[in-house]
Amino acid sequence: MASTPVEQEPAARRGRPGYDQQSVLTIAVDVFNRHGYEATSMGVLAEQLGISKSAIYHHVPSKGDLLRLALDHALGGLEAVLTESGATEGKADARLEHVVRGTIAVLTERLPFVTLLLRLRGNTTVEREALERRRSFDRQVSALVDAARTEGSIRSDLDPRTITRLLFGTINSVVEWYKPGGPLTAEKLADDVVTMVFDGLHRR
Amino acid sequence: MASTPVEQEPAARRGRPGYDQQSVLTIAVDVFNRHGYEATSMGVLAEQLGISKSAIYHHVPSKGDLLRLALDHALGGLEAVLTESGATEGKADARLEHVVRGTIAVLTERLPFVTLLLRLRGNTTVEREALERRRSFDRQVSALVDAARTEGSIRSDLDPRTITRLLFGTINSVVEWYKPGGPLTAEKLADDVVTMVFDGLHRR
Repeated sequence: MASTPVEQEPAARRGRPGYDQQSVLTIAVDVFNRHGYEATSMGVLAEQLGISKSAIYHHVPSKGDLLRLALDHALGGLEAVLTESGATEGKADARLEHVVRGTIAVLTERLPFVTLLLRLRGNTTVEREALERRRSFDRQVSALVDAARTEGSIRSDLDPRTITRLLFGTINSVVEWYKPGGPLTAEKLADDVVTMVFDGLHRR
Repeated sequence: MASTPVEQEPAARRGRPGYDQQSVLTIAVDVFNRHGYEATSMGVLAEQLGISKSAIYHHVPSKGDLLRLALDHALGGLEAVLTESGATEGKADARLEHVVRGTIAVLTERLPFVTLLLRLRGNTTVEREALERRRSFDRQVSALVDAARTEGSIRSDLDPRTITRLLFGTINSVVEWYKPGGPLTAEKLADDVVTMVFDGLHRR
């Protein structure tokens, strides 16, 4: 599942045989993550792809468009979780758990894309727009935490803003070490995160 | 407590009045965190300090030495936690909790220094040595998790390596948002982290 296609763009099969927009994007994201978006020129990208700069422009108009497409793939996945019935119907507590599981699924399936999103500094319009979408996602999860607290299913002795931040800290840290295809499946990881966060490490 | 002095170096009061090695270091760490260590030249540092490059060399021999001193301040704090009696005596469970609280205390007191440590990529010998010390710290915490699992105080249904990683993910994420001197004290933060991690968010 690591190579989930970018759904929001029809596969544009122009340019060299063997590359389409999707594969250019996947390699670009990898290069951005290794060297930083700003430090990566279209020349460096062309080198990594083994094609000319003009061949890249067959696939995408600019480096900014590559970034926009990549971030949209990460954000689109996260935003879709919030619209699923598991996130919109039932007790806030169960909806919050659904969102935690769904977020872990997106992180593990679209790992390099989410990594790029989490490392953004917001220096360009594309980055600032992506950060605003990310903040909006965070606010919706924060509202779920508040609702679960109000309905009495989660503790009231913890600061709710701290809970949301620690929750994201726990989930997002997964991009730093998770290896797709390794012995730890995304499902077992989601189970472990949910158990630790909602029930705690202590044996009862 | 945000400006805890670097204990391992005697305060060298050479160079311009108004600056000592400690204040040069504090500003350097701030600049490294904002612009990246590699992207920061001694010229840029001098500009930020409002002194000449040669005046910086009165305080430290090189940029690498600034980095080494800064990382040693972060790592020295973390390593000291592991030698406290709370971390070495008693049940593994209580020792682990002590280490979590102590780590949060070091993170919040030495925030910019730990931030620098957590963002390291390991491109120089100084960075690689710091990363090796960090890994050694992580391994010791991991051993405590194993011991708490063996003594039966923490759950056995979670993967122990996942627990250690999520634990560090939760704790380390604090550097991204914690504001020293704000309404959330370091003590309340440590309480909330300990409660969430060990007892979970669910009300019982």
